[in-house]
Amino acid sequence: MSSSEVKVLGAWASPFVMRARISLNIKSVDYEFLQENLGSKSELLLKSNPVHKKIPVLIHGDKAISESLVIVQYIDEVWTSSESILPSDPYDRAIARFWAAYLDEKWFPSMSKIARARGEEEKKAAIKLVQEGLVLLEDAYTKCSKGKMFFGGEKIGFLDIALGCFLGWLRVTEKAHKVKLIDEAYSPGLVKWAENFCADAAVKDVMPETDKLYEFSKVLMAKMRAPQKPA
Amino acid sequence: MSSSEVKVLGAWASPFVMRARISLNIKSVDYEFLQENLGSKSELLLKSNPVHKKIPVLIHGDKAISESLVIVQYIDEVWTSSESILPSDPYDRAIARFWAAYLDEKWFPSMSKIARARGEEEKKAAIKLVQEGLVLLEDAYTKCSKGKMFFGGEKIGFLDIALGCFLGWLRVTEKAHKVKLIDEAYSPGLVKWAENFCADAAVKDVMPETDKLYEFSKVLMAKMRAPQKPA
Repeated sequence: MSSSEVKVLGAWASPFVMRARISLNIKSVDYEFLQENLGSKSELLLKSNPVHKKIPVLIHGDKAISESLVIVQYIDEVWTSSESILPSDPYDRAIARFWAAYLDEKWFPSMSKIARARGEEEKKAAIKLVQEGLVLLEDAYTKCSKGKMFFGGEKIGFLDIALGCFLGWLRVTEKAHKVKLIDEAYSPGLVKWAENFCADAAVKDVMPETDKLYEFSKVLMAKMRAPQKPA
Repeated sequence: MSSSEVKVLGAWASPFVMRARISLNIKSVDYEFLQENLGSKSELLLKSNPVHKKIPVLIHGDKAISESLVIVQYIDEVWTSSESILPSDPYDRAIARFWAAYLDEKWFPSMSKIARARGEEEKKAAIKLVQEGLVLLEDAYTKCSKGKMFFGGEKIGFLDIALGCFLGWLRVTEKAHKVKLIDEAYSPGLVKWAENFCADAAVKDVMPETDKLYEFSKVLMAKMRAPQKPA
C-alpha cells in the first residue's frame, strides 16, 4: 500500500490519533502522518471532518473517515489479509466494543477531570473514579485475556488499542499529580499488560515519551487557562 | 430460535430498547420482553449490566450484552442467515457508525434538552441545534440512500435503526413544545423516510403511539421534577 493513498490527520500527543496509527501499524500499512497545529485547523481537516472538525481523520484514497473507534474498525475491515484487530467471536466483539465505549464515555472523561479539577476535593473524587474504573478494567482484562498477554489474546486487539492509547496521558497524570493510577495493589494484571503494550512493535514508535508529553501538557494547560481572544 | 433463549430487558418507551427489538424483528428472532419498572431496577438487570445498570440488555443463553449499538451489531453478527443490518462495504459501515455515534453523542442529547430547558432562550437554542442536526442528517440520508427508501438502501439498516428509534420522542417533543422538527422545508427526504420507517414490518409493532408516549412523558417529567427522597 503506497503512502500517498493513506493519510492520517492528527497530532503526536493525541491518544485518539494513536488508535488509528497503531491499527495501521498492525496491518503493516504505510501512511503519511499530517500533523495539525495546536490552536488552528487545516483546510484539509475542516473539509474532511466538517461535522466535528476534529482529529483523527483517516484519508484512504478519496474517502475520509472520522471518529477513532470507527477508524479502527474500518482499518480492520479493509485490510483483512493481516492480523485481525476485532475478536472473531461475536460475543467477544460485543464485550470489546462495550468496554471501548465505557472508556470514551466514562473512564477517560474522569481522567481528564483530574487535571481540570478546581480544588483538592474535586481532584480526589476524579482520582477515585479513575481507580474504580481500573478495578473494573482489571476484571475485564482477566476475563478477556484468559491468562494471555493482551485483552485480545496473544496479539494486540481492539480493546488493547482503545485503552492503551491513554497510557501516555495516564503516566503524565500520575507524574503531575503525584498519584498512582495503574497499581500493583488493585490492577496487577494491567501493570504487566501496560508494559507489554508499550513494548509492542506496533506501539513503541507511536507512544509518546512521558517527559515530552509532560512538557507538552504544561503548554496545553497554560493555553487553556489563558484569557480567550474576543471573537 | 426459541424465545426462552433470547430475552430483552427493557421498557416500551425507551428508544434505545427499540433498537434491540427492531434488530431482532429484522432477523425474525423470537424473544421474551422483560419490562423494567420505572424507578426500580430488577435483580436481573443489576446482575446483567453491573457497570451501567441500564436498559437495554440482550440476554442470549448465558450471555448478557449491553449498550444498544453494541447489541445491534451483536445481533447482526450472530444471526447471519437473515437480512444484514450493517452495510457490507467497509466505508458504508464506517459512515453508518459515524452518524450513529453522532446521534447518541450530539443530536439526541440536544433533543433531550428541549424538554429540560430552563426558560425560552435555552429551549430555542436546543431546538436550533436539533434542526441544524437534521439538516446534516438530511444530507447524510441523500448520500447514503442514493434515492432508495432507507439509509441502508431498500431495507432498514444500522443507521435507520439508530435514528428511527428516536421518532416517537421526536413527535412527543413536537407536540409538547408546538414546534416542527422533521420538516418539509429543510428535511423533505427525512419526512418521507420517517413514514417508511414507521410503516416497516420490523418497526410498526414496536414504535410507541405518540399519544400514549406523550402521556407517559408527563408522568416522567413530573417524577423528575419531584423532590428526591433523602438517601
